[in-house]
Amino acid sequence: MAATMRATVFVEPGRIELGEKPIPPVGPLDALVRITTTTICGTDIHILKGEYPVAPGLTIGHEPVGIIEKLGSAVQGYQEGQRVIAGAITPSGWSNACQCGVCSQDGPGTRHGWKPLGGWRFGNTIDGCQAEYVLVPDAMVNLAPVPDGLSDEQVLMCPDIMSTGFGGAENARIRIGDVVAVFAQGPIGLCAAAGARLAGASVVIGVDRMAGRLEVARRMGVDLVVDASRLDPVEEILRLTRGRGVDVAIEALGTQQTFEAALRVLRPGGTLSSLGVYSTDLKIPMDAFAAGLGDHKIVTTLCPGGKERMRRLMSVVESGRVDFGGLVTHRFKLDQIMSAYDLFGHQRDGVLKVAITP
Amino acid sequence: MAATMRATVFVEPGRIELGEKPIPPVGPLDALVRITTTTICGTDIHILKGEYPVAPGLTIGHEPVGIIEKLGSAVQGYQEGQRVIAGAITPSGWSNACQCGVCSQDGPGTRHGWKPLGGWRFGNTIDGCQAEYVLVPDAMVNLAPVPDGLSDEQVLMCPDIMSTGFGGAENARIRIGDVVAVFAQGPIGLCAAAGARLAGASVVIGVDRMAGRLEVARRMGVDLVVDASRLDPVEEILRLTRGRGVDVAIEALGTQQTFEAALRVLRPGGTLSSLGVYSTDLKIPMDAFAAGLGDHKIVTTLCPGGKERMRRLMSVVESGRVDFGGLVTHRFKLDQIMSAYDLFGHQRDGVLKVAITP
Amino acid sequence: MAATMRATVFVEPGRIELGEKPIPPVGPLDALVRITTTTICGTDIHILKGEYPVAPGLTIGHEPVGIIEKLGSAVQGYQEGQRVIAGAITPSGWSNACQCGVCSQDGPGTRHGWKPLGGWRFGNTIDGCQAEYVLVPDAMVNLAPVPDGLSDEQVLMCPDIMSTGFGGAENARIRIGDVVAVFAQGPIGLCAAAGARLAGASVVIGVDRMAGRLEVARRMGVDLVVDASRLDPVEEILRLTRGRGVDVAIEALGTQQTFEAALRVLRPGGTLSSLGVYSTDLKIPMDAFAAGLGDHKIVTTLCPGGKERMRRLMSVVESGRVDFGGLVTHRFKLDQIMSAYDLFGHQRDGVLKVAITP
Amino acid sequence: MAATMRATVFVEPGRIELGEKPIPPVGPLDALVRITTTTICGTDIHILKGEYPVAPGLTIGHEPVGIIEKLGSAVQGYQEGQRVIAGAITPSGWSNACQCGVCSQDGPGTRHGWKPLGGWRFGNTIDGCQAEYVLVPDAMVNLAPVPDGLSDEQVLMCPDIMSTGFGGAENARIRIGDVVAVFAQGPIGLCAAAGARLAGASVVIGVDRMAGRLEVARRMGVDLVVDASRLDPVEEILRLTRGRGVDVAIEALGTQQTFEAALRVLRPGGTLSSLGVYSTDLKIPMDAFAAGLGDHKIVTTLCPGGKERMRRLMSVVESGRVDFGGLVTHRFKLDQIMSAYDLFGHQRDGVLKVAITP
Repeated sequence: MAATMRATVFVEPGRIELGEKPIPPVGPLDALVRITTTTICGTDIHILKGEYPVAPGLTIGHEPVGIIEKLGSAVQGYQEGQRVIAGAITPSGWSNACQCGVCSQDGPGTRHGWKPLGGWRFGNTIDGCQAEYVLVPDAMVNLAPVPDGLSDEQVLMCPDIMSTGFGGAENARIRIGDVVAVFAQGPIGLCAAAGARLAGASVVIGVDRMAGRLEVARRMGVDLVVDASRLDPVEEILRLTRGRGVDVAIEALGTQQTFEAALRVLRPGGTLSSLGVYSTDLKIPMDAFAAGLGDHKIVTTLCPGGKERMRRLMSVVESGRVDFGGLVTHRFKLDQIMSAYDLFGHQRDGVLKVAITP
Repeated sequence: MAATMRATVFVEPGRIELGEKPIPPVGPLDALVRITTTTICGTDIHILKGEYPVAPGLTIGHEPVGIIEKLGSAVQGYQEGQRVIAGAITPSGWSNACQCGVCSQDGPGTRHGWKPLGGWRFGNTIDGCQAEYVLVPDAMVNLAPVPDGLSDEQVLMCPDIMSTGFGGAENARIRIGDVVAVFAQGPIGLCAAAGARLAGASVVIGVDRMAGRLEVARRMGVDLVVDASRLDPVEEILRLTRGRGVDVAIEALGTQQTFEAALRVLRPGGTLSSLGVYSTDLKIPMDAFAAGLGDHKIVTTLCPGGKERMRRLMSVVESGRVDFGGLVTHRFKLDQIMSAYDLFGHQRDGVLKVAITP
Repeated sequence: MAATMRATVFVEPGRIELGEKPIPPVGPLDALVRITTTTICGTDIHILKGEYPVAPGLTIGHEPVGIIEKLGSAVQGYQEGQRVIAGAITPSGWSNACQCGVCSQDGPGTRHGWKPLGGWRFGNTIDGCQAEYVLVPDAMVNLAPVPDGLSDEQVLMCPDIMSTGFGGAENARIRIGDVVAVFAQGPIGLCAAAGARLAGASVVIGVDRMAGRLEVARRMGVDLVVDASRLDPVEEILRLTRGRGVDVAIEALGTQQTFEAALRVLRPGGTLSSLGVYSTDLKIPMDAFAAGLGDHKIVTTLCPGGKERMRRLMSVVESGRVDFGGLVTHRFKLDQIMSAYDLFGHQRDGVLKVAITP
Repeated sequence: MAATMRATVFVEPGRIELGEKPIPPVGPLDALVRITTTTICGTDIHILKGEYPVAPGLTIGHEPVGIIEKLGSAVQGYQEGQRVIAGAITPSGWSNACQCGVCSQDGPGTRHGWKPLGGWRFGNTIDGCQAEYVLVPDAMVNLAPVPDGLSDEQVLMCPDIMSTGFGGAENARIRIGDVVAVFAQGPIGLCAAAGARLAGASVVIGVDRMAGRLEVARRMGVDLVVDASRLDPVEEILRLTRGRGVDVAIEALGTQQTFEAALRVLRPGGTLSSLGVYSTDLKIPMDAFAAGLGDHKIVTTLCPGGKERMRRLMSVVESGRVDFGGLVTHRFKLDQIMSAYDLFGHQRDGVLKVAITP
């Protein structure tokens, strides 16, 4: 094994570069994973633009598929050479947050065991996986072996967008027969729509402004689509539901407009499940909120992680219940990752997700 | 029985009057109840001021204790002469909303069975109970016999503030060992604090700006109090919890300031349970909301109604688990109800709740 | 309208007959429904055999599809001529049981509002629907209009087997990615399997001793089938799950053998969801139950009823998520119902469900 | 520090002895804790009698209070000299069972991450704490610092009986206003009763055959007691609830008789929460079980562990919500532990729990 590796590092706002870095030493609880496939997330674009600050020199990327290269001295239950994934969120397993059921808000170094987003480490507080190798912390908590029959690309969505999207459906506690609207049909929204269907929704309504995405949505099983570039989505959804409104509205973009529309289509007692990353304060309009007396719920979800979560998501792929293979629209070598960022960052050529192979 | 009765009616914004009205005829599913004790709610003050519009001529009031005077022809299971209460919210029992678990959003006349606040009928869409008699709709759903050992005043809080306050604690899904902050220690907040304790909170922190209310809070079992007129409640609660934050924050006032403070003291993954009636749009600050990624939940609750709810609340009073008798600080005859409105509306003389006896 | 109608009545153990009965008068809360399609349930066979006692002279049957012939004087929100279904269970909407969330255990005539199975009235405590007309009690709670696009047969499974089967999956609180085994693939088991899939199970394993039923199971989307006439289902399921066991096991037959097998294939912390009607005491083997320390759950479900439930189930059919049309294997006129009983009671000719049209 | 320590070891069925053992070496994730107080559990008596088999030579005991003597090389967040407790159950934090929400069924060495009771290690699969020192595995998951104001005896019930008893109440999902019966008022039953009250039960009924225990129950806040040596508890509870039955029945003994009585007092739709350790197969009588159609639930609970659980339980003690100090009826030095076993094993002298101090 070489002593150094190529890695995609954040340099300064507006600049990410492919550089050379030492391959890190493996601590007792760690595993070193050789990346075979990874991808770029919308969050990485925020980092690139400097909208979400990370330390200069940090390796970016949080969606790893790879092969175990080396196991820490205290790690049991795995073998070197095994093909694995790890979630975008890598909880410690031992914080109070984990034991309290909010693993993604893990903060083992803090006084009380949690800090907001604390479980998100790859490409945020430690080196990520747009590189030849990644060091997975708390490996026994986080490494999930990939079933033999599944390709890298088939499980590439599990670490982040599938876990996040499904999480939005799960936290909304969808019941059999619910009507669910999903605002924005990007990768997260598409996964949320699939999760809503999987959880029992009898009608899933997808909303977007891009005709291409609505087409993908239809192909992936969304029942009804609303083109928000042509119609007012609130009016249209109320029309489609004959005034009933929806039981659950999932926000998957992160804007005031979609958040507010999601609230306005909810029936009394309905749940707004928010997945978007907001960059401004949000407003809750009093009329849509029934002055606080409508028995509404607003829930937010950060991508759930951990090996059991990954195992479950891969079992859903394996069963054929969902097929997110079609989300990978473009493929790049790691050497070409700057082109991939350019394409993905500007949403050119109908890109949904890219696959990067070192 | 006389043909007319005295009743407190809304005349126009700023004016409520005690007038004379016909005693209503009793439909097949109704019950006519002779009021023995009732009270005034903060919502009635909103109505008086014209902030919450109701039809001129409507009898106000939604917290009835009384004696069954006459039962509708189709009502079974009760006897005339029985002492009963009914909830402030009187669901129909047969709407889709009721069967969907959101009885307070009942709208049986609507196409889909719900409308916001639809279950609130007394003093809102039908004549209320600040009168000698009240007609209780869907009597079999709503009439709850009062156990012999309990006085009118002991059960007077059940129809609204106890049901609402407890509902705020219940919907927050408090777990044994949770730390809970309650913003505002008026009647609803005091009930929410009691509900939080009853549901297993190990520490309940009460916040208010009025020293008298904080004293009542302490007497009623609140563990720690924060005087928001002297201290910043967010800083103080973070200090008291040694930086941990609270698992659940209950908003019981209905202002941006308390809503925002409630959000800022929450731990990641915590729940903001909102009971207040807001009169303006609300702002969710991005930092407090972790950009939508903090696994926060915001839940709202409208007072649960129905006879089973009332039975349960009275059983809690009967068991001695709580004692809200002390909340009645002043007593008036129905003839003096204008004085009661004056006192309660201006929050004079340390008033918490008044008892009105026709 | 004639004064009498044909009706299938229980005469004595071993004897059910098609007779003539007066068409009942319509009380204020009732609706008279002219039956257009109905079916026979396994429970009816128990009644026929005298294993479940009902009053001689009672009309049998609890799965009605029909047209509203006449509405009670107090019923609002419907029109005569509307096509409707009602659930096998017809809760009152106003009992304590209903308000407590256990509508099927409704007992409005009892002191406390519940009695076991109290919500099951059709063909049990009041006349049922294997007749030309049926009187639906508490019509506003129970009548659900059938969407125009759906045929009688498409909604014929909603009143009982679909509601029961789905209820078994719902009460087991299936999570996305669960592995679920369903013991017995008769009509209820097939619906439970479909419900498990709909609720997010990634693998559903169907067990039966009849090859024909396993074939139907496969066609309806069951992932893996186990022929219990050839293999030990416990061993086979542990083999299929590589020793892991299942997250949820659904019992849909009502025997000690299937109950026990369901317990033995559960992982620690798993849930046994029981739908069967047992005719003997049950034994819980200590080893399978980990001496009471395995964090196991056993939940039982009686068919949920009410118009909102029916609306939701029909919306699932309408969406195409499931197709139970194939369950109707044989069709009869009401005049031939004795032949239908003979066929269904002896499980001849691969019968799953029959459709009876007056 | 000496090289050896005194420890209470299982020798053979019927024989436990105080012996001398080497103080174990401390692995990277372990902590060595010097025991300051511990106790004897009913389970230890089962072990002594040979009813629950453990390896000869194993140190017994699973309820440790002590001081951190030495931390493993990879353990962060603690200091030597800190006073701590650990739960009777010490989950790994990284098994699939832990991530699936069933930490007590942890089985990290198994193929799928769980095995029945796998999280119970102290005095079962590894050396326990009736000794001068105990090695705590996965220390970061399991060590909970004791708040300064609390004595050893005040927290001595947290590791097992309080966690188990409260768990029985929690898993029953008690709602405010529930009526709860607890069968057997030994240490676990008393804690379950306290937990039921803490979770919102308005009436808690305690059942036992020993007058002394019923007296303790009353002192600790049980509302009504039933002496099963004089009255039939099923009849008496139905009388006390005026035929209504209870919402939740907690079994805290582990016999057919109490299990069956618990089922017979349940209302339809009620929950039987089982905590007992059964030594024979259980029978579910069909009549009490409504042939499987009563919407009953049976849930079992193994003591929840982990540092967050311990922190929460200690916060309940600290708040004064419960006071289990009175449960310690007798005190012994470690040298006298054989006398303690004798007293406790034969339930002499009104013993509830003993405190053992090395």
